[in-house]
Amino acid sequence: MIPMTLLLAASGWKAEPWLDRFRRLAPALKVVTLADTYDPAEIRYAATWKPPVGLLATLPNLKAIINLGAGVDALLTDATLPDVPLARVVDPDLTSRMRDYVVLHVLYHHRRMDLVAAAQREHRWLSIDQPAPGEVRVGILGYGHLGAAAAAALAGLGFDVAGWSRSPRSEAGPIPVFSGAEGLSTFLARSDILVALLPLTPETRGILNRDLFRQLPRDGVLGGAVLINAGRGGLQVEADILAALDEGALLAASLDVFDKEPLGPESPLWSHPRIVITPHNAADSDPEALAGFVVEQVRRVDAGLPLENLVDRRLGY
Amino acid sequence: MIPMTLLLAASGWKAEPWLDRFRRLAPALKVVTLADTYDPAEIRYAATWKPPVGLLATLPNLKAIINLGAGVDALLTDATLPDVPLARVVDPDLTSRMRDYVVLHVLYHHRRMDLVAAAQREHRWLSIDQPAPGEVRVGILGYGHLGAAAAAALAGLGFDVAGWSRSPRSEAGPIPVFSGAEGLSTFLARSDILVALLPLTPETRGILNRDLFRQLPRDGVLGGAVLINAGRGGLQVEADILAALDEGALLAASLDVFDKEPLGPESPLWSHPRIVITPHNAADSDPEALAGFVVEQVRRVDAGLPLENLVDRRLGY
Repeated sequence: MIPMTLLLAASGWKAEPWLDRFRRLAPALKVVTLADTYDPAEIRYAATWKPPVGLLATLPNLKAIINLGAGVDALLTDATLPDVPLARVVDPDLTSRMRDYVVLHVLYHHRRMDLVAAAQREHRWLSIDQPAPGEVRVGILGYGHLGAAAAAALAGLGFDVAGWSRSPRSEAGPIPVFSGAEGLSTFLARSDILVALLPLTPETRGILNRDLFRQLPRDGVLGGAVLINAGRGGLQVEADILAALDEGALLAASLDVFDKEPLGPESPLWSHPRIVITPHNAADSDPEALAGFVVEQVRRVDAGLPLENLVDRRLGY
Repeated sequence: MIPMTLLLAASGWKAEPWLDRFRRLAPALKVVTLADTYDPAEIRYAATWKPPVGLLATLPNLKAIINLGAGVDALLTDATLPDVPLARVVDPDLTSRMRDYVVLHVLYHHRRMDLVAAAQREHRWLSIDQPAPGEVRVGILGYGHLGAAAAAALAGLGFDVAGWSRSPRSEAGPIPVFSGAEGLSTFLARSDILVALLPLTPETRGILNRDLFRQLPRDGVLGGAVLINAGRGGLQVEADILAALDEGALLAASLDVFDKEPLGPESPLWSHPRIVITPHNAADSDPEALAGFVVEQVRRVDAGLPLENLVDRRLGY
């Protein structure tokens, strides 16, 4: 009998701790990595993070791909990707980490911690008026699972929050959610702090550009608009962020993601006094939660059930 | 007829915007300031922030004092303070600002933003393990109205929160609250991040000292204990904070309050790489809310009702 094998193909990750977890969670499941010798015909499931292009097309009996992150943009650039169900991880741990990152950076800019830190370096007691959170309009660009969690936490802290999503929401909640191209301008015009949590798709690549920044309000209580990008580096045009900071379309930014990672030491983003750089750690995945999600999907496939968090390849998320 | 006059005695505040607000909120109320000529016998109510020592004792018909901040320690040092009901401001705006300050600084240290910012200055991509919020134990020292609001928000973000209050809580809530001297050691031993929100009283002066810091855990997931003081400067022994950072009893600190404010440029606190200094703006009071509170207390006194948020002078808060 050919075993029902899981191939773990996660670039840059150490395999051994993952194999340990899978052994613990599903002792009967055979798991191999790219370093092992295996028969391509035995691979039924692939757990992937940026696998080599073309790899998955070599597996004739593949039944499901489970992507070990929320963004599937890297995977979908592989033109040979087999047409089997593809799931992406959504787990409460990842959601809460992303929510906490967004809350931290919204509060950081709300409290003008850039100015406070600069004053501290000069041993200077800085008196600034502190607007109330209710005077600050936060816009969540990309109102999916993560965006809704961040919005709820920010609304709980008193901020005036709205969201934007590609398609209209089926049910209305307490947070107003704009949608579509026609809703975008209205949404941007009321976003003192813009939080980008969009997936990277052909439609969203480069969406955080100068034209968009110019639609943000300059007359808010913070004295300008703030960008927080915790989505994907490909969403942003880095030169346009610097230009927007110079011309006043942006007041400040927190960036967790970049077109090329790690961000090279030559990047001018590092030394801009109003940019906060974080090293793509807004939402580190908890390996325990990820491994559990993978094992659960394997069980679902075996039981003839659909995958959870199935990706719509046409939409790209 | 002698008018029922309100004396506004708020050191360092511009009077005119306040007089405007009072005129708008209570057009019939006569309001004077220390710059005006007034008959001491006409003053029935005093709205104060650090008034001159001895001033209130000169008002023979004073019926109530309304303190324009949450802390009454400055007022209670006046040995001549007349024995009339004394209220301190508690308003939702002030509570939410304090809560947001605590959330910001807990997340800041949880995310090791000191290390992230240092790496940014060196154009260095920093890889650090990010513990989940549930692995971080936050302790709210001073579990009153403000402390409970901060605790609820932090618990909502996934932190493992406990509180400590002087006397046992009458009703149990979802957050464990330790109390008394015997509860303090247990509370400190489980506080990876200690948030001080105590009132300043003879009992609490200097409580944030080396002995206390040495009771904090060193084996938490952050690699050491963090102090956030958003209460009163008199709670802390500043030399002991520096010593505790040096000996490892403290990993980092955020300080909003100081023994002498503004903090002088010669203070060694400014330049310590693991101290965040904020200029006593954790919870700036919203003048609209404060003025409304004062007018409401005047109305209550006139109607024979007790003041809201009455201070127990024996306890000092």
